[in-house]
Amino acid sequence: MTDTQFPSPASIDDIEEGGVFAPRFDDAGLIPAMAIDAETNAPLMFAFMNRQSLAITLETGLAHYYSRSRKSLWKKGETSGQLQHVERVRTDCDQDVLVLEVRVAGDGAACHTGRATCFYRQVNSDRSLTTIDNVRKIDPDASYTQK
Amino acid sequence: MTDTQFPSPASIDDIEEGGVFAPRFDDAGLIPAMAIDAETNAPLMFAFMNRQSLAITLETGLAHYYSRSRKSLWKKGETSGQLQHVERVRTDCDQDVLVLEVRVAGDGAACHTGRATCFYRQVNSDRSLTTIDNVRKIDPDASYTQK
Repeated sequence: MTDTQFPSPASIDDIEEGGVFAPRFDDAGLIPAMAIDAETNAPLMFAFMNRQSLAITLETGLAHYYSRSRKSLWKKGETSGQLQHVERVRTDCDQDVLVLEVRVAGDGAACHTGRATCFYRQVNSDRSLTTIDNVRKIDPDASYTQK
Repeated sequence: MTDTQFPSPASIDDIEEGGVFAPRFDDAGLIPAMAIDAETNAPLMFAFMNRQSLAITLETGLAHYYSRSRKSLWKKGETSGQLQHVERVRTDCDQDVLVLEVRVAGDGAACHTGRATCFYRQVNSDRSLTTIDNVRKIDPDASYTQK
């Protein structure tokens, strides 16, 4: 049985310097998670986890998120094959954010547009966008249309 | 005058492939932002921005966030000298998350604990935490105690 309960931190010092993982979820029961490439640190995608998806991720070593649009557990890559093998989970000083160092399986795309990363555009100071990564690993229409 | 208004996107295609920055803020008027090291991609810190802090960041090239605890604009490093010079802002497919590639000024710490990164601990599968970066660039008590 997956234990979806996590302890509550006792003090600021426990939160910042303690050895017990006591993640802090927001009022909706969610915690932000950024997936980065385990080798290059390149930012790949951002999503939220709830207690269940976090527990399953730690248990299985495969990234599971919480889909706010579908309101359900989201095993990343279940349909597309773009599974994310989690090499390491990191948390921050406040234990209210996660970073997942992952290796992407399948064709290596992390974005539903078919790109390796969701962060394929830069924002210019004039507020225009420039695409900095336009390599499509897949035809997104052939795989799935909604992440 | 800093223009704190941002356009609303017209369609999914505009959001995902368009050249106009039309960031999507949540119900609280916030957008998540992950700061990473511009050279190494190392994740440094995570915070939220509101329209004002995003507009000022784009205008000045210095990272400004929104402090949810203080409910106010937060010029990162204003007190500590740990200014974040923004080399590039990136947004994701949905335009509802930002990545800031930054160079940290001053002593180079991004975390209020004095470390270069807030993500100094790894989460183990048994839910214990291991500190993977314990170098303190500053004595946090000498600088400030609350981020």
